[in-house]
Amino acid sequence: MSSDSVQPSRWEKGVSRQLASTRVFDVQGVGYRHPVRGAEREFVVIDAPDWVNVVAVTPDHQMVFVRQFRFGIDAFSWEIPGGVIERGEDPLAAGLRELEEETGFVGRSARLLGSVNPNPAIMNNRCHLVLVDDAVCTVKQSWDPDEEIEVRTLPVAEAYDWAHDGRITHSLVLNALLLFAPRWSELKAPR
Amino acid sequence: MSSDSVQPSRWEKGVSRQLASTRVFDVQGVGYRHPVRGAEREFVVIDAPDWVNVVAVTPDHQMVFVRQFRFGIDAFSWEIPGGVIERGEDPLAAGLRELEEETGFVGRSARLLGSVNPNPAIMNNRCHLVLVDDAVCTVKQSWDPDEEIEVRTLPVAEAYDWAHDGRITHSLVLNALLLFAPRWSELKAPR
Repeated sequence: MSSDSVQPSRWEKGVSRQLASTRVFDVQGVGYRHPVRGAEREFVVIDAPDWVNVVAVTPDHQMVFVRQFRFGIDAFSWEIPGGVIERGEDPLAAGLRELEEETGFVGRSARLLGSVNPNPAIMNNRCHLVLVDDAVCTVKQSWDPDEEIEVRTLPVAEAYDWAHDGRITHSLVLNALLLFAPRWSELKAPR
Repeated sequence: MSSDSVQPSRWEKGVSRQLASTRVFDVQGVGYRHPVRGAEREFVVIDAPDWVNVVAVTPDHQMVFVRQFRFGIDAFSWEIPGGVIERGEDPLAAGLRELEEETGFVGRSARLLGSVNPNPAIMNNRCHLVLVDDAVCTVKQSWDPDEEIEVRTLPVAEAYDWAHDGRITHSLVLNALLLFAPRWSELKAPR
């Protein structure tokens, strides 16, 4: 079987109203109309800025990780550096900025591994996954007022172990590891 | 470098207040106090039920995919079957139920590939990733009122191509592909 005959319709977007506004996202009720069924519904959409997450790899093939207390899960979480892209900011520049602020690591250049949707059903934003090669720790961290971050490096192969054994659980960090895998195969191959 | 000396503190949870309530999640302002700095802050947390996403593999090693219009991104999205786990429902049972409702595929059994946090910073829920082997299409789909779903199968290797070339962008679907990879290596190996 390749595909059955159903072709879902594109709902027509109507009027939005703001249901809540917070420091990190707004919540909107967005009106939609089904072009065939005629049904009119309001769906809930989290309106958030785009985010960036950074795979930073040192010259000796370690990946830079951060550990923070996370208020969503009320627990600590091992993640890669990242954060909110500022209005008008380039995703690659944002990645280098977040890496440096959170960890003190700097890299010569950044490139895009890919971009994902954190949740297409209820969120309108994207998360850009950025690779920084040859990252080295040269500057002092510069945290936001409520940040407190443990920094460590981990051999890349161990990072994949942590992903598969449940020590890394952040969806977007796991995305970065998936999209970095082809590049890691190249990097670790004997020259 | 293995780890620097900073050990982030566990913030102490205080009083919560509801900022918004919707059909699919609530938004809470949760008070926290830093045990050392003494700072008191309110952080925003999306309170949502746990979700399930299903890797359903047919006897001839095709993976079951669904395509729906998604209101968050105002566009179509290729995903694996999944949805909200009902209160008290077992994640594996929920996976088999969502698979059957959305696609008409049924499997003999389900097992857990892993569980992830969709967003530890701002969401309190988990998404369970479930594997259903030997899935076959035997029953009629049973959609929720606003659902309209295109179903297709895709050779597993192609699913990974779709993940890496940006045709699959849903963060949690990409997580399922990452956590299924070791099992796929076993399945595709010559016996």
